[in-house]
Amino acid sequence: MAHITLGNDLPGIVGLFHYRPQTARPLGELAEVLLRDDNALSRGERELIAAYVSARNDCRFCYASHAAFAQAQLPEDSAPVEQICADPARAELSAKMRALLDIAGSVQQDGKTVTAGQVTTARVAGATDVEIHDAVLIAAAFCMFNRYVDGLATIAPDDPDAYRAMAAGLVETGYVAALPR
Amino acid sequence: MAHITLGNDLPGIVGLFHYRPQTARPLGELAEVLLRDDNALSRGERELIAAYVSARNDCRFCYASHAAFAQAQLPEDSAPVEQICADPARAELSAKMRALLDIAGSVQQDGKTVTAGQVTTARVAGATDVEIHDAVLIAAAFCMFNRYVDGLATIAPDDPDAYRAMAAGLVETGYVAALPR
Repeated sequence: MAHITLGNDLPGIVGLFHYRPQTARPLGELAEVLLRDDNALSRGERELIAAYVSARNDCRFCYASHAAFAQAQLPEDSAPVEQICADPARAELSAKMRALLDIAGSVQQDGKTVTAGQVTTARVAGATDVEIHDAVLIAAAFCMFNRYVDGLATIAPDDPDAYRAMAAGLVETGYVAALPR
Repeated sequence: MAHITLGNDLPGIVGLFHYRPQTARPLGELAEVLLRDDNALSRGERELIAAYVSARNDCRFCYASHAAFAQAQLPEDSAPVEQICADPARAELSAKMRALLDIAGSVQQDGKTVTAGQVTTARVAGATDVEIHDAVLIAAAFCMFNRYVDGLATIAPDDPDAYRAMAAGLVETGYVAALPR
């Protein structure tokens, strides 16, 4: 049960968005820009960064959601997201995504732990400055979303089908369309 | 020097906002709603939560900025923000703010460490559900802002006057007015 009375029984951040639409609006717009707007990184790759950080923060709702969103939008022959998140250093992954996930892992711990060497590795693997910027901001944003969802003790469904259903809706219409009116 | 080429020499998050206005917009709007919109918590109290979390994350730019923003908006007879952030348990502070800072400190560590007992203590001290929600979200948001600013190794001015000047502008016009056009 959530720490506060939400007045709805919607899971995770969805319940919080309906409780406080004023803060939901910029949060949904941030997710839309970061994870769905036209970008050199694909939607699947950006959701993978979100899932990886959520796994490292051990946020059950966000991890299950964004892992499903990533899997639904990555090419069909991609490695399973669960496998990548468990051990990106050994997973089948482009050198660029491996380097960006490495940076995201440092951001998750503490922004100050990102090194010039990690950034150089990402650049050598083909990452642009905007891609490095976005990887850092996605990782930072999920350090917020994860704490928001867990800090208020929201519900996380156990059934994987619940997340697959959310993924189908998300891929179709995006984050802003799902906001309460 | 920042990890990426920002094309400007503006400090901290200001340089990032000018580098990537698309993400700056929802981030500025989030700060405006959370820290300045009409609310049971005063603007000074909300900036105090932001400063406290930034101190715990050891983010020099965000701490110096939001400590200045808090001090500029708290009543003149308030304890120094620096003193409160260093040891809120002993600082001169309302029981409600002490309880909310305690929750914010747990969120900074990991959302899952917030206990029902901490929430009850806040309620007994007069905090409403919306105030508890907002304290959690402010703390979570600064775990993002701090990582964003530090993860890209942005500049933090040494001169305290730089932050006092930013505070004067912020108190006057707010976060959205300061966004790049």
